[in-house]
Amino acid sequence: MNASIISIGNELLSGRTVDTNAAWLAAEILALDIPVVSTYIVGDEVDRIVRMLEAACRDANIVLVTGGLGPTEDDLTRDALAAFVCTELEFHQGLLDDIAGFFAVRGRAMAATNRRQAYLPAGARALANTTGTAPGIAVEQEGRRIYVMPGVPSEMKQMFTDGIKPALKRLDPGQHIVVRKLQCYGTGESDIAQIVGPLMARGRNPLINSTASQGVITMHIVARASSKPAALDLAQKDERLLREMLGSVVFGVEDQSLAQVVGGALAERKMTVATAESCTGGLLAKLITDVPGASRYYLQSWITYSNQAKSALLGVPAALIAADGAVSRRVAEAMASGARKAAGADYAIAITGIAGPDGGSSEKPPGLVYIALAADGRLYCQRCEFGQPRAAVRLRAAMTALDILRRQLAG
Amino acid sequence: MNASIISIGNELLSGRTVDTNAAWLAAEILALDIPVVSTYIVGDEVDRIVRMLEAACRDANIVLVTGGLGPTEDDLTRDALAAFVCTELEFHQGLLDDIAGFFAVRGRAMAATNRRQAYLPAGARALANTTGTAPGIAVEQEGRRIYVMPGVPSEMKQMFTDGIKPALKRLDPGQHIVVRKLQCYGTGESDIAQIVGPLMARGRNPLINSTASQGVITMHIVARASSKPAALDLAQKDERLLREMLGSVVFGVEDQSLAQVVGGALAERKMTVATAESCTGGLLAKLITDVPGASRYYLQSWITYSNQAKSALLGVPAALIAADGAVSRRVAEAMASGARKAAGADYAIAITGIAGPDGGSSEKPPGLVYIALAADGRLYCQRCEFGQPRAAVRLRAAMTALDILRRQLAG
Repeated sequence: MNASIISIGNELLSGRTVDTNAAWLAAEILALDIPVVSTYIVGDEVDRIVRMLEAACRDANIVLVTGGLGPTEDDLTRDALAAFVCTELEFHQGLLDDIAGFFAVRGRAMAATNRRQAYLPAGARALANTTGTAPGIAVEQEGRRIYVMPGVPSEMKQMFTDGIKPALKRLDPGQHIVVRKLQCYGTGESDIAQIVGPLMARGRNPLINSTASQGVITMHIVARASSKPAALDLAQKDERLLREMLGSVVFGVEDQSLAQVVGGALAERKMTVATAESCTGGLLAKLITDVPGASRYYLQSWITYSNQAKSALLGVPAALIAADGAVSRRVAEAMASGARKAAGADYAIAITGIAGPDGGSSEKPPGLVYIALAADGRLYCQRCEFGQPRAAVRLRAAMTALDILRRQLAG
Repeated sequence: MNASIISIGNELLSGRTVDTNAAWLAAEILALDIPVVSTYIVGDEVDRIVRMLEAACRDANIVLVTGGLGPTEDDLTRDALAAFVCTELEFHQGLLDDIAGFFAVRGRAMAATNRRQAYLPAGARALANTTGTAPGIAVEQEGRRIYVMPGVPSEMKQMFTDGIKPALKRLDPGQHIVVRKLQCYGTGESDIAQIVGPLMARGRNPLINSTASQGVITMHIVARASSKPAALDLAQKDERLLREMLGSVVFGVEDQSLAQVVGGALAERKMTVATAESCTGGLLAKLITDVPGASRYYLQSWITYSNQAKSALLGVPAALIAADGAVSRRVAEAMASGARKAAGADYAIAITGIAGPDGGSSEKPPGLVYIALAADGRLYCQRCEFGQPRAAVRLRAAMTALDILRRQLAG
C-alpha cells in the first residue's frame, strides 16, 4: 500500500498560504506504515484537479485530497471528483440538514450557497465533519481509495482521525511501525553519512535517514515488524548501534533541542549559567530562554557590544582589549570569568567575534569567533571560523556555545 | 508565461519537514506576474522525479525545482534531470574547485562525497551558490526553462534572487514590471484588506496583495506597463495611495526590517539604545543586532531574568517588585530608566512579562507583557496581552518594542 496527497486551493499556489496539511497527513500515514510517494498542489480548476487525480491514482492506491469543499463557486473539488469518476453530483437532504444544524446550534443563519456542500458524486460516501460545514467524500475507483477532506486544518485533522485513519488501519492489520529520532550536533550531515554508512542503505529495516536544520542533524530510525514489541526492539537495537558509532555527537532524542538538553542538565544539578555576548548580540540568551522554565538555571546576562561595556560590565581590562583586540582568546576568557563572577553563576559562556560582513581583516576575517566557558577553577576557549553570511555565523556561534556547555556537563 | 514548482526530498513526503520553499517561490514568481499553476512534491527516486518533470513541463513553460542536490547517494535530482533531458552527467573541475574552496575558507575538510556536486547534465549551466556547496542547474528543454536549486531555504533564496529572478524578468521584453513592497506593522492582514479594499481587486493593474510573516504585513505592488518609466509611475501612484490609507502602520519599503528602520533612524541622529529584557530573554537584542553595523547605536544591554538581577543590575527597588510584582507597569518603567542610566544611552527599552506556558495567574495570564521606553525626561509604558504560545508571545513582545521605538523616533 502507498499513498498520494493532493492539496487544492489557489491560495496555496500564490504563496499566501503554506500547505501544512500535506506534511501532517504524510506523518500520520507513515505512522500506519503507508509511504507517501507523491504530493500535488493544484488550484481551483476542474480540469487541473482531474489531471492531478489521474496522476495520483497512477502513483498510489490511496489518494488523500484536501481543500475545495467550501460553499463558494471557487470550490470545485466536488465537481472535479464527479468528472473524474464519470458520474453526476447528487443532492442529499440528510447532508443539508446536518449543515443547517451546524449553523442552528451556533445561532447563525445558513447562507444559500452552503447548499452546494450537500452534493456528492453518485455512489460516493459522505465523511462526517464535526467541526465545520463541509462533509468529506470517500469513493473507490478501480481499486483506488480516494478520500476528500476540507482544507481547514482543524476540520481536516478531525475528519482524518475519526473517519479515515480507522479504515486505513484495517487495510493492513499485520504491520507495526516504530519511529525513533536521535539529535546530533558537532558534525556535518555528509560526515555522519560516512560514519554510519551501510546502516543508511535503502530498503533496510529499520530504515535510517537524516535531516539537517540549523546545524542539528536528526537521525530517523523507522522500524517495521509484525508486532509492536518486535518493531520497538529493532528500533532500539539500531539506536544503540548509532550511539556507538556517533558517540558524543548524539545529544538528544525525539524533538529535544540543544538548549533543552543543556537546561535539563543544569536544572538536574541545580546549577546556573550566565552569558556574555558580543557578536551574537543576545541570540545565545534567546536560545536558552526559548525553553519554558529556563528561569531555574538562567538568572542574568550581558550583551557587551562595545569595548567600553566589556570593561565596565564584565571587568575585562582595557589594556587587554588594546593589546589583543576585542576578538581574541584572552578577551573571550576574561568576559567569561567576569560574567561568572558578576552573576555568581556556576558557569558562564562568553562569545566574541566578527559576525560580518564588515569589520574583518586578513588576520581576523568575518566569521572568526572565540567562545569561552568559565567553570569553577577552569577556563576553556575555542576558536572557530564560521565564514559568512552574518546570520549563519551568529547562529553557529550560539549553537556551538551551547554544545560546549553540553559536553562540559556530560563530562 | 506560467510556472510549475517541484520540491524533491523524502523528508517532505514523510511529514518530517513542511515544504516552505514552494510558497516562497510562488510569491516571488507571482510578483513577476508569472502565475504558478501547479506544485509537486516527490521523494528522492529517479523515476518519480522524471515523471514529475514531465508533468510540470506539460503544465507550464517555467519549471522551478528544489532539493536533492546534496552530496549523498540519496540526492538524485542531478541524475533524474540528466535522464529527463536524455543526456549524461559530466564532471566539471571548476565546480569542484568552488566546492573545495567553500570548505577551505571555513577551515573544514571536504568529504569525498561532495565530488558528486561537481556533476551537471551535459549542456546544462551551473547556477552559483554563494551560501552552500551545491551549485544549481539551469537547462532548456523544448522551450521549457528548468531551474534546479538546493532545498536548503537560505541557499535556495539566494540562488533564486541572484541567479534566476533576473533571467525571468528578461523573458518578456514587451512587458515591464515594477514591484514595490511596503512593510507594515501594528495591524492585522484582514484589517489592512478592509482599509485598502478595492485596490486589492483581482486583475487590477497594479496588482496589490499582501503576505504576513512574524506580524509584519508586506504589501506587494506589482505594476505592469509597456515601458519601465510607465510601470514605475503606476507603482509610485499606488504607493502614495497606500501610504495615505495606512498612515503610520507603514514602516519601510522593500526588504527592510523593523530593526533596520529603527537602527537607521538612530544612526542618522547619532543616538544609542540599550535594552533590558526579562521574558524575551535576549530576543529583542538579537533582532537589533541582526542588522550589520548595529554597533554604531547599540552598545550594551542586560538580560535580567531574576528579580534579584533586576535590582542589582538595573536598580529596580526590591520593594517595588515585592509590591507590584515583576510583571507590572512600574517595574517595566524602572527597568527602562535603570538601563538608560547604566548604559548612558539616549533610549532604553525594557520588557517584562509572562511568556508562559507556566507562571501565570488569573490577574496576570500568560502572554501579559509590559513594554517601557525611557527617553530624555520621558517614560512611556504599554500593556499588551499576547495570549500564547510562548514563542509567539516573545516574538510579538520584541517586535512591538521595536515598533514603539520606531514610532517614537518618527515623532
